[in-house]
Amino acid sequence: MGFVPDSVNRLIEQFAKFSGIGRKTARRMTFQVLKSTDESAAQLAKAILEMKTRIVFCDICGGISEHNTCDICQDSKRNTDLICVVEEPADIYAFERTNSFNGVYHVLGGVLSPLDGIGPDDLNINSLVGRVTATCEVIVSTNPSVEGETTALYLAKLLNSKVASITRLARGLPVGGDLEYTDDATLIRAIEGRTSI
Amino acid sequence: MGFVPDSVNRLIEQFAKFSGIGRKTARRMTFQVLKSTDESAAQLAKAILEMKTRIVFCDICGGISEHNTCDICQDSKRNTDLICVVEEPADIYAFERTNSFNGVYHVLGGVLSPLDGIGPDDLNINSLVGRVTATCEVIVSTNPSVEGETTALYLAKLLNSKVASITRLARGLPVGGDLEYTDDATLIRAIEGRTSI
Repeated sequence: MGFVPDSVNRLIEQFAKFSGIGRKTARRMTFQVLKSTDESAAQLAKAILEMKTRIVFCDICGGISEHNTCDICQDSKRNTDLICVVEEPADIYAFERTNSFNGVYHVLGGVLSPLDGIGPDDLNINSLVGRVTATCEVIVSTNPSVEGETTALYLAKLLNSKVASITRLARGLPVGGDLEYTDDATLIRAIEGRTSI
Repeated sequence: MGFVPDSVNRLIEQFAKFSGIGRKTARRMTFQVLKSTDESAAQLAKAILEMKTRIVFCDICGGISEHNTCDICQDSKRNTDLICVVEEPADIYAFERTNSFNGVYHVLGGVLSPLDGIGPDDLNINSLVGRVTATCEVIVSTNPSVEGETTALYLAKLLNSKVASITRLARGLPVGGDLEYTDDATLIRAIEGRTSI
């Protein structure tokens, strides 16, 4: 866009970098910042910088925290024999929102992906091996993608002899889903994993 | 969400303030900032602050600019007898993207809205009156909303004797639209404004 001042264009570019935010939304956001007070724009900028300064990775699980050990790992009511292994810190909060998981987490920081050059040494796998005990159940909760499945199989092989059990989240029909629009791969998993009623 | 560090929650709140950005998107954006390098987060914060510092309103049209007079008002190739009156600076760029308008702009900074207590003195109407000449065509390009129409009528009455002509953008079927799904008000305008072929 000609005639848009450079500093406006730069902010549009910055917002458009977010995945899921297209140029139109980025433009609308930018003009909203422009219309807002100097104070609220400063608050937004401050929130970004402050978060980046304060947040560190938890020593134990690799999740995010403002302390060296995160609130979940510090919580004595949590069952440390139940370890949910996830790809990213954000995945933790998907579980936490359900209020139905009482174990602890371990963040891999990604998945195995030979094509992108990401091997076991690039993930928090060593710290997971050091953490598990013979009484542990490890729930491998990587995403149901090719890389997620590969990582789950790798972890299963690695930890098999070291823990009580290794499980994977159930695959099947999503709640509220529609059989007619369910893809073949999901339906195959749903048949394989059928449960008695 | 319990267990999400405060500084993360604060940034989620800030992103969720944008219209059209829900909490889910705000959360995803926040975790993307968290994953990004310190440098790119700093760039985003800098772009916000820099834009707010640098952008001023053009002395002539009320549009946005990094100088006292915007690039469009400074452009000697523009037809200053054709003034397109818009609500917000962002509207200018909608016209500029079409590459088919060679006149200049005037930004009202809103629309008349008695319910919200916004009267003529709250908008850039005086500067518009001071700007028009007897050879001007004024295209009132406020949005096709109740307030936009009211503002257009007010401006028409005010400027009628001062300019050569006052026009309003055509209302009718949007290009690519579908008759079946067109609302009644639009269809009535399309019939009223029918053109010979």
